Amino acid sequence: MSRTACTDEPCPSALEALLCRYRAVRGQSERLCQPLAVEDYGVQSMPDVSPPKWHLAHVSWFFEAFLLRPFLPGYRPLDERYDHLFNSYYQTHGTPFPRAQRGLLSRPTVAEVYRYRAHVDEAMAALLERPPGERVAELARRVELGLQHEQQHQELLLMDIKHLLAQSPMLPAYRSDLRRSRAKPATPLRWQGYPGGLGQIGHGDADFAFDCERPRHRVFVEAYQLASRPVSNAEYAAFIADGGYRRSDWWLADGWTLIQQAGWQAPLYWREEDGGWTELTLGGLRELDPDAPVCHLSYYEAEAFAAWSGARLPSEAEWELAAQGTPLSGNFVEQDHLQPMAAADSGSGPAQLFGDVWEWTGSAYRPYPGFRALEGSLGEYNGKFMCGQMVLRGGCCATPQDHLRASYRNFFYPAMRWQFSGLRLAREA
Amino acid sequence: MSRTACTDEPCPSALEALLCRYRAVRGQSERLCQPLAVEDYGVQSMPDVSPPKWHLAHVSWFFEAFLLRPFLPGYRPLDERYDHLFNSYYQTHGTPFPRAQRGLLSRPTVAEVYRYRAHVDEAMAALLERPPGERVAELARRVELGLQHEQQHQELLLMDIKHLLAQSPMLPAYRSDLRRSRAKPATPLRWQGYPGGLGQIGHGDADFAFDCERPRHRVFVEAYQLASRPVSNAEYAAFIADGGYRRSDWWLADGWTLIQQAGWQAPLYWREEDGGWTELTLGGLRELDPDAPVCHLSYYEAEAFAAWSGARLPSEAEWELAAQGTPLSGNFVEQDHLQPMAAADSGSGPAQLFGDVWEWTGSAYRPYPGFRALEGSLGEYNGKFMCGQMVLRGGCCATPQDHLRASYRNFFYPAMRWQFSGLRLAREA
Amino acid sequence: MSRTACTDEPCPSALEALLCRYRAVRGQSERLCQPLAVEDYGVQSMPDVSPPKWHLAHVSWFFEAFLLRPFLPGYRPLDERYDHLFNSYYQTHGTPFPRAQRGLLSRPTVAEVYRYRAHVDEAMAALLERPPGERVAELARRVELGLQHEQQHQELLLMDIKHLLAQSPMLPAYRSDLRRSRAKPATPLRWQGYPGGLGQIGHGDADFAFDCERPRHRVFVEAYQLASRPVSNAEYAAFIADGGYRRSDWWLADGWTLIQQAGWQAPLYWREEDGGWTELTLGGLRELDPDAPVCHLSYYEAEAFAAWSGARLPSEAEWELAAQGTPLSGNFVEQDHLQPMAAADSGSGPAQLFGDVWEWTGSAYRPYPGFRALEGSLGEYNGKFMCGQMVLRGGCCATPQDHLRASYRNFFYPAMRWQFSGLRLAREA
Amino acid sequence: MSRTACTDEPCPSALEALLCRYRAVRGQSERLCQPLAVEDYGVQSMPDVSPPKWHLAHVSWFFEAFLLRPFLPGYRPLDERYDHLFNSYYQTHGTPFPRAQRGLLSRPTVAEVYRYRAHVDEAMAALLERPPGERVAELARRVELGLQHEQQHQELLLMDIKHLLAQSPMLPAYRSDLRRSRAKPATPLRWQGYPGGLGQIGHGDADFAFDCERPRHRVFVEAYQLASRPVSNAEYAAFIADGGYRRSDWWLADGWTLIQQAGWQAPLYWREEDGGWTELTLGGLRELDPDAPVCHLSYYEAEAFAAWSGARLPSEAEWELAAQGTPLSGNFVEQDHLQPMAAADSGSGPAQLFGDVWEWTGSAYRPYPGFRALEGSLGEYNGKFMCGQMVLRGGCCATPQDHLRASYRNFFYPAMRWQFSGLRLAREA
Repeated sequence: MSRTACTDEPCPSALEALLCRYRAVRGQSERLCQPLAVEDYGVQSMPDVSPPKWHLAHVSWFFEAFLLRPFLPGYRPLDERYDHLFNSYYQTHGTPFPRAQRGLLSRPTVAEVYRYRAHVDEAMAALLERPPGERVAELARRVELGLQHEQQHQELLLMDIKHLLAQSPMLPAYRSDLRRSRAKPATPLRWQGYPGGLGQIGHGDADFAFDCERPRHRVFVEAYQLASRPVSNAEYAAFIADGGYRRSDWWLADGWTLIQQAGWQAPLYWREEDGGWTELTLGGLRELDPDAPVCHLSYYEAEAFAAWSGARLPSEAEWELAAQGTPLSGNFVEQDHLQPMAAADSGSGPAQLFGDVWEWTGSAYRPYPGFRALEGSLGEYNGKFMCGQMVLRGGCCATPQDHLRASYRNFFYPAMRWQFSGLRLAREA
Repeated sequence: MSRTACTDEPCPSALEALLCRYRAVRGQSERLCQPLAVEDYGVQSMPDVSPPKWHLAHVSWFFEAFLLRPFLPGYRPLDERYDHLFNSYYQTHGTPFPRAQRGLLSRPTVAEVYRYRAHVDEAMAALLERPPGERVAELARRVELGLQHEQQHQELLLMDIKHLLAQSPMLPAYRSDLRRSRAKPATPLRWQGYPGGLGQIGHGDADFAFDCERPRHRVFVEAYQLASRPVSNAEYAAFIADGGYRRSDWWLADGWTLIQQAGWQAPLYWREEDGGWTELTLGGLRELDPDAPVCHLSYYEAEAFAAWSGARLPSEAEWELAAQGTPLSGNFVEQDHLQPMAAADSGSGPAQLFGDVWEWTGSAYRPYPGFRALEGSLGEYNGKFMCGQMVLRGGCCATPQDHLRASYRNFFYPAMRWQFSGLRLAREA
Repeated sequence: MSRTACTDEPCPSALEALLCRYRAVRGQSERLCQPLAVEDYGVQSMPDVSPPKWHLAHVSWFFEAFLLRPFLPGYRPLDERYDHLFNSYYQTHGTPFPRAQRGLLSRPTVAEVYRYRAHVDEAMAALLERPPGERVAELARRVELGLQHEQQHQELLLMDIKHLLAQSPMLPAYRSDLRRSRAKPATPLRWQGYPGGLGQIGHGDADFAFDCERPRHRVFVEAYQLASRPVSNAEYAAFIADGGYRRSDWWLADGWTLIQQAGWQAPLYWREEDGGWTELTLGGLRELDPDAPVCHLSYYEAEAFAAWSGARLPSEAEWELAAQGTPLSGNFVEQDHLQPMAAADSGSGPAQLFGDVWEWTGSAYRPYPGFRALEGSLGEYNGKFMCGQMVLRGGCCATPQDHLRASYRNFFYPAMRWQFSGLRLAREA
Repeated sequence: MSRTACTDEPCPSALEALLCRYRAVRGQSERLCQPLAVEDYGVQSMPDVSPPKWHLAHVSWFFEAFLLRPFLPGYRPLDERYDHLFNSYYQTHGTPFPRAQRGLLSRPTVAEVYRYRAHVDEAMAALLERPPGERVAELARRVELGLQHEQQHQELLLMDIKHLLAQSPMLPAYRSDLRRSRAKPATPLRWQGYPGGLGQIGHGDADFAFDCERPRHRVFVEAYQLASRPVSNAEYAAFIADGGYRRSDWWLADGWTLIQQAGWQAPLYWREEDGGWTELTLGGLRELDPDAPVCHLSYYEAEAFAAWSGARLPSEAEWELAAQGTPLSGNFVEQDHLQPMAAADSGSGPAQLFGDVWEWTGSAYRPYPGFRALEGSLGEYNGKFMCGQMVLRGGCCATPQDHLRASYRNFFYPAMRWQFSGLRLAREA
């Protein structure tokens, strides 16, 4: 739904605005891929990663499957086989091509994928310029969903590009022209108090939000405290130096087993060289900035650090209640750092709640009370993943700022850490 | 802490009572093993299962490691190697013998394990009859923990015996003399309403409870409804007949992947024969009782069934709030059915909240607000498992009744189903 | 066929002699199991190993499947399910129970397996005492095959018992009363020359031999030399000390990969303690005897040692041609060492060709020219394994002496080493 | 060694001829890649396959590692990291980049790999135009080895391209302009007799041959017969129709296990459509030519077919003795079919011994008597693979004709079938 729509049926100018936004979002996906070599587009560096080419095609498939096929009379797909190839996980919409084999597909080529995008864009323009007489509100809602979906994949693109480039001993940089701030001393960590009581979290009916953010509902929390900023690299390095990865005391059992088997001894992308730490970034190999938020932690590492600190992770309710009064700004993809940065002291409020790093919460990703999935195949978008994963909040340096909300729920399995994930400490008041 | 203690330091008679209870609980573990052949004691039918012999030794090790070694001056272990062999998962207490290899140990023999039990029992009697002058309260608390721990393993023994006997095409029965009730028609399912509001769950300070049940704390729930009884075998069979295992619509993504890979088409222990269902029980192969609660479901199956029903699983708060006013009785191990049974209509209240089958809740097993693990190695008892698992409530036909509480939190990974697990439906009011 | 038969139809006294031999062989299997605890009978310590109980039952099944069912009118099996449970790998005789799950079967119990043996023995006695009027020669041939089969499993029993007892940190000995020789200095290694030319290997038509040993056929070899005795523990320890397991130079590619992944640094059962080597034997943990033949090597280790020595393994033709003139005696199971022993100098001929350790040859286990497998399901006995395995020759300290022949071909995959396997060096003349 | 050299030190014109040949072989590798899209160059469709880009770089690394570094004074590598990245398996020459991860390397790009080739070519020209004063014979031998090595990779390139293109449901053709013969009726299969006796196989000292083909040595064979041509697609289809993949009778045990687990029901690249067979070729999807030799069989399938036919596979000695008198011509890569073809009747001799399909022999790939590996790291070229693999003979439609010899030994693991492999039947005379 158009973000400014106030009636159920969007007026023509709302659809025009939507088309405008469609073009902007679609263009951004392609801009993100400009620095890539053709060779980079096809690599799947682990099953969780998708080749950039696949992302570009899949987000187009989404518009094709859920808008062009059902809404545009006479729509002719560019290639019928793409409906199978670029279906991610919609079991009720045919049989998806096996996820772990996405990196084996040299064809369609990159050029063919861009042709597919152009084909879909042309048809989408036709649809939005001459919309059908009925179900226009549903159409607008789905376009908005498709755009939000594409924005999610823009962040995935950056995560996946970072991961795939890290496979080569050549250590190629994605871009050498990223903006870099002068590292600031991290502000001293302060504890910020929040009152307990009955509050409300989740997204209301107006405006776009994913189904998993709804309904808005009441929650009770006891009084609590949040750290004034995320945990820094220097603080995490102290945990390592104190035997963080060698003593089981602070670890969840599954986490301990994992780090033994995988041989983890530091966050993903950290490298020890001559006694100091470097970090692989989208801008290439850099010295670790001690004041920047620590990033690329699994849930297990985040919780172990919190235990070592004598603190804990916040619940998602605690996080969201604190965030409700905080302006939504920070180090997002628009800042063009593509790397978490040390921030200036925020004064009274919590710093860096938004942007920089996704913050692991201690909450499992489960449906809110009264949760209703979307109708039809779109119901597979979120609901079926609500088991075994943990919620992260706040967006990161690879997230589009206008994609984020205080109610936004991101989620990953506790072992995953190729996303830009860090943590903020919490404790009882 | 002894259940009858009223001061912090238990009086001698309290320790006498504790020793009496010690003997009862320890004797019960051995009674449960009486029907076994020597050969049954050693089998580990999957990594999650432990050989009965191992259970008998490990619960003794618990007393040795946490009571005899620290509290009994001059205690001489029977065999120092047992401290390694029968340590389950206490990483801060040496290196546990690898879990998946427990079934490879023909030695120590069954007789030697019983000797180990007798050795520990003798020392425990000495300890409780002539307790040290100080730290007696802590001693009593640990004895009670050791007994509750052994009771947990009594249920595990029955689960594991059932699983290991099921491996043989001989289909041996654990016991042929189990009490069997005449199958009753399952009572019609009614919806029972519960008001929303701020309530309290978790266990208070008095009496024994596991650390994970504490602290008692406030929770807010919206008004909700619970089904008057667990889902029955007949209802679950209808789900299967309606394509429950063949259509992805109702399944969590991980669940759908699992049932494809594992080829699951029914609950564990069900077998289709000549178009009808039979069920492997501790009493041997039986025709499926359509009115009894369905059992041996994974979380995935429970949630898929709920989705198919247009309902959901209750949260653990909803469950506990409903249970707080319900008398703690039901089909427990003492009834000697060792199998869930159809129950008579309970009249106004919910039936079978306690006993018969553990009921999967929709809540992830996470620490309560303000959770504090036990001190030292005993802190590994519960806390380190609080990730990736789901809470089950209410006990089952293999649980000792005096081991259960309304606040009792059981937990398993969502793919597991060799425990006696079923479900009760819930919905919004 | 009875070993003394001179006509195609064995006379009654030949069948009597066969029954006598039947009883002796069958009794020996049970004698080998006498030192076991009931618990030992059920353990499968790796998929290649079978529980002793299973061996005892399977060799009985062999007589049941190939003699009692086809030859004894009115034979009633003790339990029809055993035909599935104890079928090892005869795909054309029903569906074998999955090999890797043999250790999960607590039932039938040990006592029931002995009852099964008695049931089969009784029926076999009836069959041999009142043989059918026709096909008696075939019957006698099959009895002999069944006995040779059981002798093979007697050696497997000892291998498997050694392996399963080694799983427990208790390090139980199979027997504490084994005969032990005084360790002799190993004789200095001499090279023994053999002429080249056209020779014959393989077993002729007379007497029993497995199908894989036939037909006797011509082979050409160039002149060659064999070491006068097997490689000793001291020599192998020198290889280790020289970086044998740390440098890739001497290793087959698959072997190098294996030892990296498995972390092998010495033969199976060797343990480094305080800078010296001990060895787990069927008689318990012992100091390594430097003069005894090295044992429990994989093919990869044998070939790496040979490469390090500047020598090679003999081909099976070279080995057999050398063995044809050598008396068949040595350290077999009858000597009751159950461990390879240092031998006195043999004077002119090669020492220890027979007994002590199976000697890896450089020959792949393939059919001889003109090979014909047995008819029917018995054709699965050997032929279907003739790929991917290497030939070993000469028998070992766990082999019954009257089971061995100069033409005997044993075979294992190159990664296996729980058999009593060592090596003898060869080189060009 | 240069093929025309007649003294140990090649004269300048011999080096000129070698440089000329160098340029021809190197050019051919690049010509083979011309039809590829950039995207095709990077895909590794299974661990056995390498990305085309990797092949192009690795064969250049071979010249760099074994010629330019040791022989060209002042040689400057283009990038030192390539010495690690493009080392295939030479453990004694640094640590090879992990084989299974070759497909994860988007960098270096295809253009960079071609630059690497040009860099090496320039230096090789300098080396051959101004050779060092000494060790010129060794230099010439290594150049020839490098060229033969590159020719092996030319065939691998075609195998791997075929495999990787087959991953995409788009079914892209490598080339649409391949030469296609009119399918001829396969000639009737005749049996050709060969006498037994003492013969010689293996390659003599003159001319180039791989170390594994040497030394020439005496072998004894009994009289035997070979089929006049390879097994045809129609004959193999009859095996399938007769239950070839459903009955265990004809299969090696490991083969039967494999086809159960992998679900094989036909040769690789066959597809059943509407009751008929099609075949994926380098020219795209085609109807199966019933008269062409069957191709892309594993050893297990070849031996199962032979068993079903009542015949067997020839030994490599039988094959080579028959081939010694046969002119080396056939359907090689130069014919530009890139697919086995039905052949005209060959009259008296055996048809298609060379070219079309590699013929599985029944011989394990083992060292010949007196085998000596090359010196230094080049000794890893062949010798360390001489275990677990089977020999194939005769070359195929993807082999350069001047790369093949009657003594040429190809080898693959018995489960592999992405090479162009078929079979020819043999039997006793």
